[in-house]
Amino acid sequence: MNRVRAAAPQLAGLVPYDPKYLPAEAFLSANENPRDVDGELRELIGRRIAKVPLNRYPDPLAGGLRDMIAEANGLDRDHVLIGNGGDELLFNLALAWGGPGRTCLNFPPTFSVYAANARLTNTAVVDIARTEDFSIDEEAAFERLAVGDIDYVIVASPNNPTGLRCPQAFIERLLDATDALVMVDEAYFEFSRQTARPLLATHENLVILRTFSKAFSLAGVRLGYILANPAVIREFVKVRQPYSVDAVSQAVGEVVFEHRARFEPGIREIIEERGRVAEALRATPGIVPFPSDSNWILLRMEDAGEAWEYLYEHGVLVRDFSATPLLEGCLRVTMGTPEQNDRFISLLRAFVAERGSRRAQAARD
Amino acid sequence: MNRVRAAAPQLAGLVPYDPKYLPAEAFLSANENPRDVDGELRELIGRRIAKVPLNRYPDPLAGGLRDMIAEANGLDRDHVLIGNGGDELLFNLALAWGGPGRTCLNFPPTFSVYAANARLTNTAVVDIARTEDFSIDEEAAFERLAVGDIDYVIVASPNNPTGLRCPQAFIERLLDATDALVMVDEAYFEFSRQTARPLLATHENLVILRTFSKAFSLAGVRLGYILANPAVIREFVKVRQPYSVDAVSQAVGEVVFEHRARFEPGIREIIEERGRVAEALRATPGIVPFPSDSNWILLRMEDAGEAWEYLYEHGVLVRDFSATPLLEGCLRVTMGTPEQNDRFISLLRAFVAERGSRRAQAARD
Repeated sequence: MNRVRAAAPQLAGLVPYDPKYLPAEAFLSANENPRDVDGELRELIGRRIAKVPLNRYPDPLAGGLRDMIAEANGLDRDHVLIGNGGDELLFNLALAWGGPGRTCLNFPPTFSVYAANARLTNTAVVDIARTEDFSIDEEAAFERLAVGDIDYVIVASPNNPTGLRCPQAFIERLLDATDALVMVDEAYFEFSRQTARPLLATHENLVILRTFSKAFSLAGVRLGYILANPAVIREFVKVRQPYSVDAVSQAVGEVVFEHRARFEPGIREIIEERGRVAEALRATPGIVPFPSDSNWILLRMEDAGEAWEYLYEHGVLVRDFSATPLLEGCLRVTMGTPEQNDRFISLLRAFVAERGSRRAQAARD
Repeated sequence: MNRVRAAAPQLAGLVPYDPKYLPAEAFLSANENPRDVDGELRELIGRRIAKVPLNRYPDPLAGGLRDMIAEANGLDRDHVLIGNGGDELLFNLALAWGGPGRTCLNFPPTFSVYAANARLTNTAVVDIARTEDFSIDEEAAFERLAVGDIDYVIVASPNNPTGLRCPQAFIERLLDATDALVMVDEAYFEFSRQTARPLLATHENLVILRTFSKAFSLAGVRLGYILANPAVIREFVKVRQPYSVDAVSQAVGEVVFEHRARFEPGIREIIEERGRVAEALRATPGIVPFPSDSNWILLRMEDAGEAWEYLYEHGVLVRDFSATPLLEGCLRVTMGTPEQNDRFISLLRAFVAERGSRRAQAARD
């Protein structure tokens, strides 16, 4: 067979992003909304889809949805851009503000896709590790920014997978300290009730990322958006795929966004469950849950990898970070329905109890 | 306002891809299928969509559709990758085989997105202009390939916007002459009835691109795919967005591909219309239609820009290439329904006749 020359060097040894999505009865691993769009809304969605001409290219900039999101955020349409999930917009950031000879500032542990996108676009990454409690090391960040070579920064708020939002005062100070483009990833802001939106008026170097995948139950549909000043939006438009957001997704997004008030009870339930599950975890010996402003809880425990196995064998899939640098011993559990959460808690307690007896047994033997 | 530093230098002066899609009665500008998916199939699609969990992330590699396409092409699933339209896969090619210090070979006039993707990924482009009749200058291509620095090549077959497929013998000779990755863009192969598929068995450096946007009437849904050897697919997987193909699009694609035989009469109609319209154009004084193996016809005429205006004012949108280098004086008309094509022909004839009388008048004055 005639052989092919090697792909670009930055791909050598690269392992594709693996969501580690496995068959399970309770999916508590991907920070999805445990409740699907309700039946009545699905009916509306179905009727709207039936009217979409499938044979015609979609509106490249998703004008309908763009206007709705602009209006809801008190902005003009030129401050909004829709993407094929937040993922596309994260990649566009690296394409537009990164690239060869350019540098991004990253605060691990955080969403691994930020660093992966930098690598794919030949962008240098400067990592400033978070402190013991997963706060950003603010002074280290400002010291590094002062060098002047950082082209973009990503701050997740709340931070995935650790859970807490970023102090608003830090975000503002960060925006003032640099002309780098600062992306505040607000994928989970509906659960933290905090947004950097007010800072758009004073900071051209701010871009806010949001998604329909979490609060709005549309992970399967792939819709994300950014809010930014027009000069920033224009650069994102240059690097995006012209037809990245398909016509059916646009239709689904319009119906869901129009009826977004329907998702409020679900959001409140998740916030309540977060409190309830955290309390149950704190009451479980050997489990240290980290505080969360999001729709999941990160916890640290001994034998986390074994606990993951135990949960998985019993039908509950959570996310195993126990072998991830800076997250050793950690599992991340997405808030499910109250029933799913109860099941998770009782399984985890059973694991801890069984391990306790095994150890007592071993000590006696 | 706090300012933002400039985006990456390759974006300076870049103009985003503009499909020039304007409101019209007859859309003959975007090489779409003039007929939407039929009512019965839309019914099936609606029922299938109703079963898709919207709140869960899609299958990253679209396993169902991947298997169907593999089977239809006599390949294993590891020879197939689905993308968010052919566009995503074209971009992935530039990301994976292009990049800083790497070079692609391009045969203009051709689909402008090839060069745009190279620019966005800092890939050098070597252009070898087509000959007068829009054939590839084969000897110039081989001479340039012999230098050894070409990392990938894109050959559209049929070539958009000129219309003819690429001789199979040239594709084979090209694959033998280089270890560069050769993409054969077969977006319109259903209208040319020619594919490089048999060469996959002997050439690891071949990747074939196809789409659901044309023959299968799904431009609005964004589905494309590549066929290649597993070593090539693996590199594409590394650079793609993990969830680029949403769950609803996967469902639509499965239903449509399962019932793809239904699109055959439409494809045959387009092929017949192509012959009929070409003949009508040849019979119109001052119009030179180029031969086509696709679902459009490129034509050259005097005052092409004015003709475009005239058509547009009368509700018919075609694509104006009259100011595009190497395509001066050219318009591209997508084959519509027989009624739309009739309207296009009579409008174009009316334009030519009116211009004739104006000139005669001017000569008399």
